[in-house]
Amino acid sequence: MRMRVFGIDCGTEVTGFGVVESDEGAREPRLECRAQGAIRLARTETLPVRLEQVFRELSAELERWRPDTVAIEEVFYSVNAKSALKLGQVRGVALLAAARAAVPVAEYAPLKIKSSVVGYGLAKKNQVQFMVARLLGLDALPEPADAADALAIAICHVHTAQTLMLQGAVMQGAGR
Amino acid sequence: MRMRVFGIDCGTEVTGFGVVESDEGAREPRLECRAQGAIRLARTETLPVRLEQVFRELSAELERWRPDTVAIEEVFYSVNAKSALKLGQVRGVALLAAARAAVPVAEYAPLKIKSSVVGYGLAKKNQVQFMVARLLGLDALPEPADAADALAIAICHVHTAQTLMLQGAVMQGAGR
Repeated sequence: MRMRVFGIDCGTEVTGFGVVESDEGAREPRLECRAQGAIRLARTETLPVRLEQVFRELSAELERWRPDTVAIEEVFYSVNAKSALKLGQVRGVALLAAARAAVPVAEYAPLKIKSSVVGYGLAKKNQVQFMVARLLGLDALPEPADAADALAIAICHVHTAQTLMLQGAVMQGAGR
Repeated sequence: MRMRVFGIDCGTEVTGFGVVESDEGAREPRLECRAQGAIRLARTETLPVRLEQVFRELSAELERWRPDTVAIEEVFYSVNAKSALKLGQVRGVALLAAARAAVPVAEYAPLKIKSSVVGYGLAKKNQVQFMVARLLGLDALPEPADAADALAIAICHVHTAQTLMLQGAVMQGAGR
């Protein structure tokens, strides 16, 4: 059974996305990047129009890729209230796009995402880009960094789902 | 020419709305409450489902009332980042509903809303309810308070638009 995950990295200016597919039954699961991109918001537009753009473009990608899961970053609260509100507005329409497409959403903390992809939680942005490219067998680093972050979130979900499945298999084996 | 304004008071648990109509050409403008209500979010649902509920219900009301303007409160940043993010998510889908309905959005600071309705900016919640009921000629206080706040935001927009129009008329008179 294949698993297709749609990662979203919300931002007030650029929102990255990426589609990762995996064969979750395989012992050495192969990860594949099916799509990556970024939605850049026009600064000259009003906020409602910008939010509509994010919603429309994400909805179109979800319709196109029909993923099993949307994976998104949990927000850490080291930002100030003004930034949190702005980010929240974008995040709200991203979650709405998932709900409207009837795709369940999984959330992961930034530390968890980085340690899942790079091996430790305090990795830098370019280390994430490098490891994402390597895990997905890409010839070039994903650009912009927002797309790499979105792919990292999707990879984190695949890894987590695989671990849970392995644990399930071990538990079943122990129970026999 | 009549003006119909749809006020929205965003909240993480309850989002109030209200529809105010005015005859902006009249010297003593009559304000009329056409609708008021509140969207209560089910705590047991996931965040994407709750955001979808707000979006769906607001979109249905906008479709029903087809207002000239959506009026919404500017967010003040005295809240913490966690609350700001949560509020931002709801505000994002509310602004999206306005954009999808092709209705322009006007934003007003809380102080401006209160002074427009009660006469001074530090009015308390029940004073706002009382004055909203009085200005709209309602027999009872609007309930819940979120609906009263939404009506207050709509009234603030009507007052502001009327003032701008009067100023425009005076300027035109002076230019003659």
